[in-house]
Amino acid sequence: MTSSELQQLLDHVRSGTIEPAAASTRILTALRTAPFEDLGFARVDTHRALRQGFPEVILGIGKTPAQIAAIAERIVARGQTLLVTRARPEAFDAVRLVIPGAAYHPDACAITLRQGEIPPGVGTVLIACAGTSDLSVAEEAGVTAELMGNTIERAYDVGVAGLHRLLAEQARLQAARVVIVVAGMEGALPSVVAGLVKVPVIAVPTSIGYGASFGGIAALLGMLNSCSNGVAVVNIDNGFGAGCMASLINHL
Amino acid sequence: MTSSELQQLLDHVRSGTIEPAAASTRILTALRTAPFEDLGFARVDTHRALRQGFPEVILGIGKTPAQIAAIAERIVARGQTLLVTRARPEAFDAVRLVIPGAAYHPDACAITLRQGEIPPGVGTVLIACAGTSDLSVAEEAGVTAELMGNTIERAYDVGVAGLHRLLAEQARLQAARVVIVVAGMEGALPSVVAGLVKVPVIAVPTSIGYGASFGGIAALLGMLNSCSNGVAVVNIDNGFGAGCMASLINHL
Amino acid sequence: MTSSELQQLLDHVRSGTIEPAAASTRILTALRTAPFEDLGFARVDTHRALRQGFPEVILGIGKTPAQIAAIAERIVARGQTLLVTRARPEAFDAVRLVIPGAAYHPDACAITLRQGEIPPGVGTVLIACAGTSDLSVAEEAGVTAELMGNTIERAYDVGVAGLHRLLAEQARLQAARVVIVVAGMEGALPSVVAGLVKVPVIAVPTSIGYGASFGGIAALLGMLNSCSNGVAVVNIDNGFGAGCMASLINHL
Amino acid sequence: MTSSELQQLLDHVRSGTIEPAAASTRILTALRTAPFEDLGFARVDTHRALRQGFPEVILGIGKTPAQIAAIAERIVARGQTLLVTRARPEAFDAVRLVIPGAAYHPDACAITLRQGEIPPGVGTVLIACAGTSDLSVAEEAGVTAELMGNTIERAYDVGVAGLHRLLAEQARLQAARVVIVVAGMEGALPSVVAGLVKVPVIAVPTSIGYGASFGGIAALLGMLNSCSNGVAVVNIDNGFGAGCMASLINHL
Amino acid sequence: MTSSELQQLLDHVRSGTIEPAAASTRILTALRTAPFEDLGFARVDTHRALRQGFPEVILGIGKTPAQIAAIAERIVARGQTLLVTRARPEAFDAVRLVIPGAAYHPDACAITLRQGEIPPGVGTVLIACAGTSDLSVAEEAGVTAELMGNTIERAYDVGVAGLHRLLAEQARLQAARVVIVVAGMEGALPSVVAGLVKVPVIAVPTSIGYGASFGGIAALLGMLNSCSNGVAVVNIDNGFGAGCMASLINHL
Amino acid sequence: MTSSELQQLLDHVRSGTIEPAAASTRILTALRTAPFEDLGFARVDTHRALRQGFPEVILGIGKTPAQIAAIAERIVARGQTLLVTRARPEAFDAVRLVIPGAAYHPDACAITLRQGEIPPGVGTVLIACAGTSDLSVAEEAGVTAELMGNTIERAYDVGVAGLHRLLAEQARLQAARVVIVVAGMEGALPSVVAGLVKVPVIAVPTSIGYGASFGGIAALLGMLNSCSNGVAVVNIDNGFGAGCMASLINHL
Amino acid sequence: MTSSELQQLLDHVRSGTIEPAAASTRILTALRTAPFEDLGFARVDTHRALRQGFPEVILGIGKTPAQIAAIAERIVARGQTLLVTRARPEAFDAVRLVIPGAAYHPDACAITLRQGEIPPGVGTVLIACAGTSDLSVAEEAGVTAELMGNTIERAYDVGVAGLHRLLAEQARLQAARVVIVVAGMEGALPSVVAGLVKVPVIAVPTSIGYGASFGGIAALLGMLNSCSNGVAVVNIDNGFGAGCMASLINHL
Amino acid sequence: MTSSELQQLLDHVRSGTIEPAAASTRILTALRTAPFEDLGFARVDTHRALRQGFPEVILGIGKTPAQIAAIAERIVARGQTLLVTRARPEAFDAVRLVIPGAAYHPDACAITLRQGEIPPGVGTVLIACAGTSDLSVAEEAGVTAELMGNTIERAYDVGVAGLHRLLAEQARLQAARVVIVVAGMEGALPSVVAGLVKVPVIAVPTSIGYGASFGGIAALLGMLNSCSNGVAVVNIDNGFGAGCMASLINHL
Repeated sequence: MTSSELQQLLDHVRSGTIEPAAASTRILTALRTAPFEDLGFARVDTHRALRQGFPEVILGIGKTPAQIAAIAERIVARGQTLLVTRARPEAFDAVRLVIPGAAYHPDACAITLRQGEIPPGVGTVLIACAGTSDLSVAEEAGVTAELMGNTIERAYDVGVAGLHRLLAEQARLQAARVVIVVAGMEGALPSVVAGLVKVPVIAVPTSIGYGASFGGIAALLGMLNSCSNGVAVVNIDNGFGAGCMASLINHL
Repeated sequence: MTSSELQQLLDHVRSGTIEPAAASTRILTALRTAPFEDLGFARVDTHRALRQGFPEVILGIGKTPAQIAAIAERIVARGQTLLVTRARPEAFDAVRLVIPGAAYHPDACAITLRQGEIPPGVGTVLIACAGTSDLSVAEEAGVTAELMGNTIERAYDVGVAGLHRLLAEQARLQAARVVIVVAGMEGALPSVVAGLVKVPVIAVPTSIGYGASFGGIAALLGMLNSCSNGVAVVNIDNGFGAGCMASLINHL
Repeated sequence: MTSSELQQLLDHVRSGTIEPAAASTRILTALRTAPFEDLGFARVDTHRALRQGFPEVILGIGKTPAQIAAIAERIVARGQTLLVTRARPEAFDAVRLVIPGAAYHPDACAITLRQGEIPPGVGTVLIACAGTSDLSVAEEAGVTAELMGNTIERAYDVGVAGLHRLLAEQARLQAARVVIVVAGMEGALPSVVAGLVKVPVIAVPTSIGYGASFGGIAALLGMLNSCSNGVAVVNIDNGFGAGCMASLINHL
Repeated sequence: MTSSELQQLLDHVRSGTIEPAAASTRILTALRTAPFEDLGFARVDTHRALRQGFPEVILGIGKTPAQIAAIAERIVARGQTLLVTRARPEAFDAVRLVIPGAAYHPDACAITLRQGEIPPGVGTVLIACAGTSDLSVAEEAGVTAELMGNTIERAYDVGVAGLHRLLAEQARLQAARVVIVVAGMEGALPSVVAGLVKVPVIAVPTSIGYGASFGGIAALLGMLNSCSNGVAVVNIDNGFGAGCMASLINHL
Repeated sequence: MTSSELQQLLDHVRSGTIEPAAASTRILTALRTAPFEDLGFARVDTHRALRQGFPEVILGIGKTPAQIAAIAERIVARGQTLLVTRARPEAFDAVRLVIPGAAYHPDACAITLRQGEIPPGVGTVLIACAGTSDLSVAEEAGVTAELMGNTIERAYDVGVAGLHRLLAEQARLQAARVVIVVAGMEGALPSVVAGLVKVPVIAVPTSIGYGASFGGIAALLGMLNSCSNGVAVVNIDNGFGAGCMASLINHL
Repeated sequence: MTSSELQQLLDHVRSGTIEPAAASTRILTALRTAPFEDLGFARVDTHRALRQGFPEVILGIGKTPAQIAAIAERIVARGQTLLVTRARPEAFDAVRLVIPGAAYHPDACAITLRQGEIPPGVGTVLIACAGTSDLSVAEEAGVTAELMGNTIERAYDVGVAGLHRLLAEQARLQAARVVIVVAGMEGALPSVVAGLVKVPVIAVPTSIGYGASFGGIAALLGMLNSCSNGVAVVNIDNGFGAGCMASLINHL
Repeated sequence: MTSSELQQLLDHVRSGTIEPAAASTRILTALRTAPFEDLGFARVDTHRALRQGFPEVILGIGKTPAQIAAIAERIVARGQTLLVTRARPEAFDAVRLVIPGAAYHPDACAITLRQGEIPPGVGTVLIACAGTSDLSVAEEAGVTAELMGNTIERAYDVGVAGLHRLLAEQARLQAARVVIVVAGMEGALPSVVAGLVKVPVIAVPTSIGYGASFGGIAALLGMLNSCSNGVAVVNIDNGFGAGCMASLINHL
Repeated sequence: MTSSELQQLLDHVRSGTIEPAAASTRILTALRTAPFEDLGFARVDTHRALRQGFPEVILGIGKTPAQIAAIAERIVARGQTLLVTRARPEAFDAVRLVIPGAAYHPDACAITLRQGEIPPGVGTVLIACAGTSDLSVAEEAGVTAELMGNTIERAYDVGVAGLHRLLAEQARLQAARVVIVVAGMEGALPSVVAGLVKVPVIAVPTSIGYGASFGGIAALLGMLNSCSNGVAVVNIDNGFGAGCMASLINHL
């Protein structure tokens, strides 16, 4: 029942064409059986737009370049900002045929096109990563958070094996409003960083490593068991999720 | 907004006290902000009563005897049927002080009190178990399904190590409308049973075993990988869940 | 010992050619050493035909196109309905050379040919899935259940992250006789659905996800631990198994 | 080298008692060998006070009541706010002998004493939990966040099996600045909540459950694989960690 | 249909009271519906007696002393040999009240009473164990195999950390017909022993160890991955299973 | 010190050229420093020849065709029987260039050449497998045991889902001296078989399956937890190991 | 064959009582069948004494106080140094009845008695631990290494959450010859320490933690995946093993 | 603040241009905000050079040949020794274009170029491996340790299945100063070796194996649970790590 259908029904009540009791039954029936369809879609769209500036992010895994391009075209046609994560170059080739202005971020494996205004985040999101191999996940976080309106700082290759590199970045770490820490192998960096700053730390374990790293389980467990306060964790290699979370926090 | 409030509002529309447009706004606002409270509660209650005859089952784990007795009393006071699972004798001692008619099923570790009418299941639910050690879980399934209005048959100690015992029960197996199979250790019984019947088999892995049974993981994996068609699995030791599922099926 | 051999033996007993004691010994010996061969085969065939309408389903994994085609040809030659699951297009190319009428379902990766009468299911089997990535498993369930004589409804892309999409389908969910719920990642959908319906829910975890989804383990564990009643689970990605189970229930 | 020692050294340089080159060597030596001791302690103390209002939280696990009381006394003597987590009643008995004003929170198993001013959080921290069994972890989060200066709202027993209970709380959920979601078993609640709000969600898996819940692993994996954006996870049963994280965010 | 019923039926055929066709139908019906009951029980009994000399072994885990005593009494009353594994002293106290001649083996935690003749094994079963902590499992294997008619040799505390102890036993190892090797921790002993003998080695992992031994998983995996030929493995701590297997082999 | 060197030394003692004390020292020194080299090699060769008829089996995994051919040529040149397991066709192409008489077993992925006399096993080794997908592992066991001098029987596709197929093979099962049971998925077949025979059962889990079969873990755990006596297990897919073990037993 | 038996045999060869060929045969036979017994025991004793100063360490787990006391008494009677690990106070009560001079180390749960001379280690063994909860494991390492002749330094409570505490200990860390690092939870400390020193680091994961620490698995995996060079790991909670390893290195 | 800046500041203090209090503030400020940058880099470089003779080792996994060549060129240009691990032949092709003198070690998959003086290790590092399949990991350890200035001995193919091969190497084992033991499958070799030597044993599990070896987990757990003293473990397949650790020890 759309709002105009409701209006019409109430007009009929007023004019006496429909009895109040019958109208009541029709309204209650609508509530019981399908009350969410229209309102729901509208609410979510608004909600998503307020929060992130774009209603759908395309996860490139398990989709063909043609499928990605088709979904991307639909999003852009609505005037919305585009983000495709985990997109290989072939996907970008397909996308730019239909969206000439789209950009490809090879390190992040992401395709983007900014459209419309995005409310800016309050402060800076600093993204730290332990080694150069974690760069791809860190960049996914960075591209995501940037597209969502945040100012990004990067402090890469500051792993705990050479602590001086991290300590040299203390000033920038302490100036950030949210810190994303990306690390594979033993995943120790978030604990150390969280001990140095007074803002929330989003920890992203990566699948970088071999042997007993078990595709990122070692790093994940390390981060979940962090002895430092102020650390919360997202899924292995989930740079996108960390970027979203950081942006939500930075827009508070 | 309750249905009488709605009725009243529509009466005002009819009488001209309230304009259709204002009424429309009020109804839409109610939908947007808290549309589920009243309808939701009402719908679920009805739904539960239709399905199981009792709106709440008390899981005895992690509750004190006093807490169990207090919740049980409230349920019984509403005229509803009582089921407490995983209840130790101490819990029953506390319950029967406030509900003198309650019964204790020591094998199933369950407390029950039947109140009101429960619609009967269509056919028979047969519960098979592999060994006598699985009996407690099998009985939890049995007490649950029985209380929900089903006729129960039991075929216990028919494990696959002595196949003749199971084959001797073929007639009863084939006469059932749903079969629950409870087994620990290697959990092979559901596969064998499902090959002998043409009705759904609900498989319940138990934590019975030692060493590489890993608290029921071996049986659980065995059942999930069953090479027979028509097997679905519930959680380890979840006799209650199997009884519910069997009852739902048997009431179709 | 076939039934005609038994008849002949008893004729000899009647005519006095063989003594009752000697005949008794021969019958008992036959029982002891190989009593199942003939009766067994016959019973199972009948049983399978009654239950599913086709005696063998070909699992396409680990078989060459040529092997699949050869087995499929034998099944079709017997006048039986054909179902090949997990079949790649190459397998279909091989099959349609020998079975021109066979159909390929690319989403489900299944090959089918319906032959003879299949008894219809009593009600509707509704298949819900959380995201478009789960579609392949959902379709395997759908093709399977449809071929077994069931009317199928589909409610796809109704994941819990946007609850309104699911709530909009409540009417169709509540009209179904069995619900299959297919979900990867955190596998939360079956719990939510089971809280909305009063019929059995067959939950199918999928391997969709990355990182700590561990190829479907996260979804599997989520479903096994469902806090809703009336949920039973099949193996990861086992759309076929869910379709079978739903069909068995829907034919009760 | 303390700051007064440095001042004294520089005075000697000024007066000519010590040569600039010799002073340079002494300063560099101090930096190389033990530069962190004093500065470090001072910096961390300040940092902790700014962030949380109390420099040390006592984890009650694995400590005797006497040990807990001794550490607590030292903290309180410094004028700092006291928080002991995972404290059994015996520990509280020991603590209140030396700190008469301390309070015990039996649901949260926490001992607290507020001292001095704590800067208030900006908005409200809402704590939702799936079932009454998760209450202890939820309360640990609540007591922690409250002590750190945050206004707390609670929405308990809103698990996904009865969705209407959660939907009825939408207004309060959407009014919060940070949401903590506590759930055991399949851990589906954070995904559903994050789909309803536009603020960060801190997910806390609990060890509530049995069988394949594996002490909280099922809930943990479910939350890490959440299909909703804006969810980050802390360790199993780590209510304290969630409370800290939420407070950090709410003080931004 | 028992053998005397069959005899009687055939007598009626002979005398003409029953037609051969009717008799054939009755015999076939009996086969179809319940053919295994009587024959099955008889066959298994014989089979068990031939193989092990006692039809049932009582697993003491999860049974009360009274239950164990009751089952034991029934077995002994049939003139069969008694074996109760995993029996605590309290169980023995209950058993000897009803079976005064029963013996208790404290190291093996087993209760035994030998009755009747047991066919002797062909050669010697040698049981080696790595450390004194594995003794309990080794003795369970020993008591089992001995009761089943085998001559047992023991070579205890011959772990691989001090290889000379094992090498000193080479003569006895090479004289055995079957070797059982019991080891916890890294479970390396079966590989080394199997490299020294030309007979089958039954490997028994034990739960002895701590930390990353994970209750015997480390030893189990070590044994399954043995680089030596001629090793097969039983469940963790399953001394009884190893004794049975060795006895079966030694009776060939 | 070789045996001829020892003989020469003792001749010198006899002739008085060397004092007994000096000779004693030289012999003890030889024992202490390198006592195994010569004797060791000789002993192992003899031992292996006595046991299996061929001193080295080549595991084809991780070796190039050229490497396999080179090792195979060396073995054949010594007049020994050749067995290469896990050999792809390319490896056979390389081997037959240098060993024209070698045979390839495509189902077993094995290359063989029999040379010299192999002592025959005492009875029959029966190899049962659950499904046609397990055939490759079953054939590896078969080729291995056959090459080691055993008479092989095969009972394939006798999985527990259609019990009649297995029961029809009871006579052959009971006539065997050792039974190898190969099964993937839930791995239930060894338990059922061991309940039907009175000889040792060697269980081989296979990696056949998907989802929660976890590459054979489900089958492995199922077999380790077998509720039947007389079952021992080898590594996942280890047909070769099962064939060796069965041959050792069958040669007793 | 002992050295005196060999001497006697050679005397007989010299005197002509035994022929060289017969003597050769007897010597070779002795080598083949049991060459290790006597020499082996002697060699190992010497070897152990050279290495550690005490031939046997008693692991207190799974032994009664009486058993521990009996073994301890035997060791002390031989004049050897005593070490009992994982000994509860009851065990010490039993030990000091028979060994009045024995000392108990309550933090390390160890019983010791030093006897004879132990060669001193070359440098210092520094033991660092992350938190006070790891103290028990750290002390087991300390008591072990000290008893083996090493000078011990301790740097406790230097976890990575407050980096300044660790950095303040740099001078002592860099002065050590071997560093043992003990940590639970995320186990990050060894990586950080190994980046600060140029000597070997022995990492000991502890079972300290809860939830996803999984009894020390998180810490173990973290240490195995250390991104720093010069780290090797021992079993969870294995302070004794770390102490041994450090002592072996420090005695080079 | 560099040392020359400090010198200049102190000169100003001496000359009276800057007040001691102002100078003190500037020095303390420098310490607080970025004290590590310069000192840190210098310290680490020196430290690394003293320890290993080359500041960076390139892990070839996940880098393109071009990236590897670029980093390698930079290292060599600084006059430092080059080590690239896990380098495929294509990487070497790229490297030798820019570094003509570089050498490739195909067994170890390593690229090296020695430059400058490396201090020699004190004794010999012996590398033992269980089978020829472990050779690649063993060689990575060997190339690493050799490049770091150590004399290497190799004892390959000395697995525990044929103990004589290992015992024949006792003299060389006992002559080494550190032993690296590389083994896959059950990983038993380190325990046996550590029982034969009195020096530290570095154990390296390899991913060699199949089925229940789980990519090296079986070997890893075996080594962590070693019943021999003096064993510490590195990550699966981490030959490089073992080589580093052995070199650190051998340079003490």
